[in-house]
Amino acid sequence: MAKEEDPKQVILVRKDLKLGRGKMAAQVAHASVSAYLEAVEHAPKVADKWLMEGQKKVVLWVKDEHELFDLYKSVPKKIPTAVIADAGLTQLDPGTVTCAAIGPWTDKDIHKLTGHLKLA
Amino acid sequence: MAKEEDPKQVILVRKDLKLGRGKMAAQVAHASVSAYLEAVEHAPKVADKWLMEGQKKVVLWVKDEHELFDLYKSVPKKIPTAVIADAGLTQLDPGTVTCAAIGPWTDKDIHKLTGHLKLA
Repeated sequence: MAKEEDPKQVILVRKDLKLGRGKMAAQVAHASVSAYLEAVEHAPKVADKWLMEGQKKVVLWVKDEHELFDLYKSVPKKIPTAVIADAGLTQLDPGTVTCAAIGPWTDKDIHKLTGHLKLA
Repeated sequence: MAKEEDPKQVILVRKDLKLGRGKMAAQVAHASVSAYLEAVEHAPKVADKWLMEGQKKVVLWVKDEHELFDLYKSVPKKIPTAVIADAGLTQLDPGTVTCAAIGPWTDKDIHKLTGHLKLA
């Protein structure tokens, strides 16, 4: 079972964009790498622990850009995050925000922020 | 336009598993982070360049585990790679190989290996 202090990462994806699955996976990966790099810089112990324990990741839906930013703004500054805007080369307008990663950080703190969201 | 020496990463996903889109995105992100870490260790200049240039990623279908491993075995050793097996907690049997990342590495070399595959 997951313990409260086990690190995890959640990635919030905008459901309203109806991204193709390959596109969505690439955007989620971009968010995951970027927030991991934030963690390496600002919370290196958590970053290491997350890697050692198998990089637990959960992908969750947010309704739209509004819900994404509302949630993002509520994240305490100590928690590593990354917001991803698409370069707009293919399916989307340039600069469209597609997803955001929160963590790696403790399961407990992340659950408080995102426990109400549904699995994508 | 992409130049031949620009670094990119491709992630091969098994189409036969019919993964849910959130599950697929999480597996692709796992592969992406893992191959990036390989690159940091064995090809740090390419890893840096890839980050600086926006982490170009492309998600491609492979038919099944056989096609995934055939392709994986053909990748020259200098190119960073990662194969991801699912922990089997949810949709899959434990140890099921879901995807593999190749790169970051030069567009040119990766295209030779995966140019025949379709976008996921």
